[in-house]
Amino acid sequence: MPVFSRLVRFLAKNGKVYYGDAILPRGVTDIAQTKKAKIITGDIFGKHEVTEQVADIRLLLAPLALEDVKTVRCLGLNYALHAKEYKPVTSLAGPTDPIPVHPQAQDAEGLDYECELVAVIGKTCTDVSESEALDYVLGYAIGNDVSHREWQIQRGGSQWSLGKGFDGWAPFGPGIVSSQVIKDPQTLKISTRLNGKTVQESNTADMIFDVKKTISFLSRGHTLLPGDIIFTGTPSGVGMGRNPKLWMRDGDTVEVELEGVGICTNKVEFAKESAKL
Amino acid sequence: MPVFSRLVRFLAKNGKVYYGDAILPRGVTDIAQTKKAKIITGDIFGKHEVTEQVADIRLLLAPLALEDVKTVRCLGLNYALHAKEYKPVTSLAGPTDPIPVHPQAQDAEGLDYECELVAVIGKTCTDVSESEALDYVLGYAIGNDVSHREWQIQRGGSQWSLGKGFDGWAPFGPGIVSSQVIKDPQTLKISTRLNGKTVQESNTADMIFDVKKTISFLSRGHTLLPGDIIFTGTPSGVGMGRNPKLWMRDGDTVEVELEGVGICTNKVEFAKESAKL
Repeated sequence: MPVFSRLVRFLAKNGKVYYGDAILPRGVTDIAQTKKAKIITGDIFGKHEVTEQVADIRLLLAPLALEDVKTVRCLGLNYALHAKEYKPVTSLAGPTDPIPVHPQAQDAEGLDYECELVAVIGKTCTDVSESEALDYVLGYAIGNDVSHREWQIQRGGSQWSLGKGFDGWAPFGPGIVSSQVIKDPQTLKISTRLNGKTVQESNTADMIFDVKKTISFLSRGHTLLPGDIIFTGTPSGVGMGRNPKLWMRDGDTVEVELEGVGICTNKVEFAKESAKL
Repeated sequence: MPVFSRLVRFLAKNGKVYYGDAILPRGVTDIAQTKKAKIITGDIFGKHEVTEQVADIRLLLAPLALEDVKTVRCLGLNYALHAKEYKPVTSLAGPTDPIPVHPQAQDAEGLDYECELVAVIGKTCTDVSESEALDYVLGYAIGNDVSHREWQIQRGGSQWSLGKGFDGWAPFGPGIVSSQVIKDPQTLKISTRLNGKTVQESNTADMIFDVKKTISFLSRGHTLLPGDIIFTGTPSGVGMGRNPKLWMRDGDTVEVELEGVGICTNKVEFAKESAKL
């Protein structure tokens, strides 16, 4: 069982990178506002300790180091209909990282956001029952499962799975709130703002497949490992589902928020044409 | 650059697990027949050394340890048409492991084989050109991208991606032949035998997207990491494409073979109903 409450990974003012337990300022619930954390030593998925050593945070990073992540699973529009994919670990990014848009995905149409409750597996499980599923969760974060709909659909995106797997297209964070703190993940407000305007607004109570059902289903014949990350699907309001459709553009700022966890704020950055190809 | 010729991972007669450089008996080309290997020390993807210490092989394992693998990518029927998915690392298995079939996938119809040239990435690359792509390959193996067509298609398998990601449904090996040994991966005979009968027989020269084109394409906006594994697609002859269709059943033995690499021989084992669900 984790001994931390709100796991963050950060660049400290001393120039080192640590795991830590966030110290929230009084009255603040958004982990992104954290300025200090107690340094954690040991193995996040095994024996670890929250020390009394406090570090000053310069920058919050993706709450798990890439080498600590195994498989990234994504459900589709959970709050409406169901689909599932895997993403490469290289798609993960931190709560304030830019979302780099490769020249190949810079069409005017199709770049979309998806706020999602993210569940992080803490212990190995296979064929786990719904009633026991949450015992295997390390904690919860908020993530943005960035997608390019034209790649997904018209260009045969399910064909190439390139519509979701680009580098940096799965920012998550700002920290991972322990499943000891969030005992019921189905009671949390979840939302997206694009350039300050609310575009998705729902509650995890409205998920069709709740977290325990999702984990039980995913684990059938599939071993889930510590460090596996599950993007559990998004509510209505995505750009593709709007009339007129709404796509993210170069320079846009997209925020995804989960109650009790905080906000990921990421800027869309169209990359220059690569010189290598 | 790797200093080994034929990387194997194995349980030695002394009870320990090692990486090694296979010592092929005279006249033998199938790595699965290897009985001895020179022990390799160090980091397979970094500084490593082939020592003069020879170990006796009791059992060949998946040629990369699960913790050394990052993302597993699979192309669809490369020799015919194109598609792409990711598999979880837990789908990987060794060259003689059984293929466990979960009770949920034991329909009489749909369990299929796919022999595939497997390329293992050795160095980080993004947006790599076709002409440089092979410089980033550690080596090549043969793999069986086991699929369940009913899960994939009728039950919305692309929906759930459960048609390919089950534990143990991606056996590969028997070793990884260095890209210094196989300089041109497009000249190799590749085949599948089901219970001794040849059901797929082709040559990697017939791939529509060759390895260098595949790696260049996959790397666009996607960073490929050391330990990434690419199943590059299968030739004709899969069970789904036959008339009448041909499905694997409990107790069947399936062999996939790649010239210059060797044979993976795996037995289909229907698992008993899980007690946990």
